[in-house]
Amino acid sequence: MTTLERAIQNIKGIDAKSMEEAGIRQNTLTKPMGSLGRLEELSIRLAGIMRTPHPAINDRVIITMAGDHGVVEEGVTLYPQDVTAQMVDNFLRGGAAVNVLADHVGARVIVVDMGVAGNFEANSSSPVGTELVIKKVGRGTRNMVLGPAMSREEAFRSLEAGIEVVDDQVSKGMDILGIGDMGIGNTTASSAIASVFTGLKPMEVTGRGTGLDDGKLSHKISIIDKALNINKPDPHDAVDVLSKVGGFEIGGMAGAVIAAAAHRIPVVLDGFISGAAALIAVGIEPEVRNYLIASHQSVETGHIHVLNYLKLKPLLNLNMRLGEGTGAALGISLAQAAASVLNKMATFSQAGVSEA
Amino acid sequence: MTTLERAIQNIKGIDAKSMEEAGIRQNTLTKPMGSLGRLEELSIRLAGIMRTPHPAINDRVIITMAGDHGVVEEGVTLYPQDVTAQMVDNFLRGGAAVNVLADHVGARVIVVDMGVAGNFEANSSSPVGTELVIKKVGRGTRNMVLGPAMSREEAFRSLEAGIEVVDDQVSKGMDILGIGDMGIGNTTASSAIASVFTGLKPMEVTGRGTGLDDGKLSHKISIIDKALNINKPDPHDAVDVLSKVGGFEIGGMAGAVIAAAAHRIPVVLDGFISGAAALIAVGIEPEVRNYLIASHQSVETGHIHVLNYLKLKPLLNLNMRLGEGTGAALGISLAQAAASVLNKMATFSQAGVSEA
Repeated sequence: MTTLERAIQNIKGIDAKSMEEAGIRQNTLTKPMGSLGRLEELSIRLAGIMRTPHPAINDRVIITMAGDHGVVEEGVTLYPQDVTAQMVDNFLRGGAAVNVLADHVGARVIVVDMGVAGNFEANSSSPVGTELVIKKVGRGTRNMVLGPAMSREEAFRSLEAGIEVVDDQVSKGMDILGIGDMGIGNTTASSAIASVFTGLKPMEVTGRGTGLDDGKLSHKISIIDKALNINKPDPHDAVDVLSKVGGFEIGGMAGAVIAAAAHRIPVVLDGFISGAAALIAVGIEPEVRNYLIASHQSVETGHIHVLNYLKLKPLLNLNMRLGEGTGAALGISLAQAAASVLNKMATFSQAGVSEA
Repeated sequence: MTTLERAIQNIKGIDAKSMEEAGIRQNTLTKPMGSLGRLEELSIRLAGIMRTPHPAINDRVIITMAGDHGVVEEGVTLYPQDVTAQMVDNFLRGGAAVNVLADHVGARVIVVDMGVAGNFEANSSSPVGTELVIKKVGRGTRNMVLGPAMSREEAFRSLEAGIEVVDDQVSKGMDILGIGDMGIGNTTASSAIASVFTGLKPMEVTGRGTGLDDGKLSHKISIIDKALNINKPDPHDAVDVLSKVGGFEIGGMAGAVIAAAAHRIPVVLDGFISGAAALIAVGIEPEVRNYLIASHQSVETGHIHVLNYLKLKPLLNLNMRLGEGTGAALGISLAQAAASVLNKMATFSQAGVSEA
C-alpha cells in the first residue's frame, strides 16, 4: 500500500457523538443559547473532527508550501519568478506577513520547498525558528500551455511529500494545521483547477493575482483556456487535474490536507490556492471536506466559487489576497477561541447563574 | 471645567500625517500592494488615532460595564434581573465568555458596577485577575415607561464615571480599549437610543435580545414605543437621550469612549449595546467617531443600523449576540495583528525581494 493509499484508508467520518455532546455542553454554558453563533458551531465541528467533546488546541502549525510554475513564461504574473525563492528566504528570516501573523496567533511556521526553481540548503538556520523542509519534486513545473505541468508520477510524489510533512508535524504534537502557499504563477494554476472542478469558465474563476491590469488579466484567462484545451484534465480524476494544470506546492498542500484528515486534525484553509488544493484533496477523498475550515474569503475572483463548491463558509472577509497562510493564521486563532469557549466557560450551575 | 468638558476639549482629529506615512510604509512591505486588505486599512487608522506611523499595541484592556434597568418590570427580558449581578460574580471568577476570549487575546478585563441592583464589595478578589471597579450611580435605572430612566445629573455622573475608569487604565498603560456590557434589559434601552438617533421606528431596531419569541418581541417593541412617547428624548441632546431611555452602564461606556478618544486610544466596540453607547458619545462629540473600530456585526436587529449610522464597517460577522465585550476581544486581536503587520514585516529592500 502506498503512503497515499494508507492515508486515505485512515480517513473516517467526523464523530457525531462528540459533536452532540459538545452541542449539549454549549447549551449549559453561561450565555444565552446560541449567542456565540459561529464560534459555537465551529467548536462543535472541532469536537467532531478531533473525536472528543473537549477539543484542545495547543500546538498550532502553519505549513507554507512553495513551488514554481512553468507557465510564468507566458507572462501571466506581475512579479518575476525569482520572488518565490526570495520569499522563502524572507520566511526563514521572519520578515513576511505569515511570520508576523503566525507569531501573533502563536503558531509555528514550516516552509516546504515543494518545487522552487532555486535551491535551498536543508536545515537552513532561521533566526525566528521557521523550519525549512526540502521536498523538491522538481525545479518548477513545466509550462502547462505546452502539455502537462508535471507527470502523473510527480503528482503522486507531491501528494506524498505533503503527507510526509504532516506525519512529521503530527509526531511533534500538531493539534491544528493551517496551510498556505508561495509560488509566482500559482493563481493561474489554481484558476485552471477551479474551472475543472466547478465547471465554471476560466473567465469566471480567474482574478488579478498579485495585481494584473485588465489587459494582462484577459491574457491570463486566454492562457488558462489554452492549457485546459490542450491538456483536457479529467474532473473525475483529481490526480490527473493536479498533474496537468496543478503545481508542486498545490499537490503538497492537497497531500497535507489528506494526511491531516487521516490524523483527525482540523485543517484551516487560507485563500484561493489552498482552496484549489482542497479541491484536489476532496476530489481524491470526499470525506476530507468535513475536516476543512475556511478562514477567509479572498478578493481573488475564483475563491468564492471554490468555497461554494466545497460548501464552506468563510469566517472572515477582510478583503485579503496574500496567501502564504496569512488568512489561515487568523482562522487558527478563531478556531482556538471556539475550542476555549467550549472547554473553559462555566456552566449555569457551576456559576450559580439563573437560567432563562 | 467638569471632567466631561475637559475630556471633550482634549479630543483632536486623528492624525493625517501619521496615516500617510503608515500608508507609504504598507506599500514597501513584502506583499503585493493592498493584499492585506482591511488589515492594512486598520493599521493606517490606528496610526492616525495613535498619532504615530508605528502604532504599538501591547496593553489590551476590555472594560465591561454592568447596570440594571427598571424597565425589566415590564416583562421585556427572558432572564431575571438577578442575572446581572450573578454574571458580575461570574466575570470575577473567570467563567464567562468575555473572560475566556479576553484570555485568548491577552487582554485584561475590568468590570465596572455602574448601577447593578445588587451590591459588590470594592476590590473583591478575583482568582483570574479580573478587576472590579465600583462606580454605582444607582441600584438600577427607573422604569422608562413611567418617566426618565435617570436624572440628567445621573446621566452626567455615569458619563464621568466612565471617563474616570479610562483615565485610571490609561495611567496603568492601556494601549487599546474594548468596551462591553452586562445588564438584563439593556437591549430595550439600546433599541430606544438607536431609534432616537437613526430616526428608525422601534420595530426596525428592536431584536430578540437573549432570545424572545415573537409575542414577547412585539410586547418589547410596544414598551419602547411607549417609553419614547412619554419621554420624548431630544436627538440633538445626547445627554437627554441617555437620561430618558439609557442606562448607567450605557452612560459609563459612552464616557469611556469619550475618554479614550481624548487619550488617543483606539476603541473597539462590541455589539449592539456598545453601539448605542457610541451613539451617545458621538452625539456629545462627533469627532469621537474616528476613534471607533467596529469588531463585529451582531445578530441583534438594530446593530447594523447603528453601524451604518456611525459609518463603521464591522471586521467580523460571526452571528454573535452575547455582549460582555466578547466581540471586542476578537476585534482587539485583529487590531493588534494589523499593527504588527505594519511594524514588523520586512520591506522589499530589507528582504532583497524583487518588486513588481
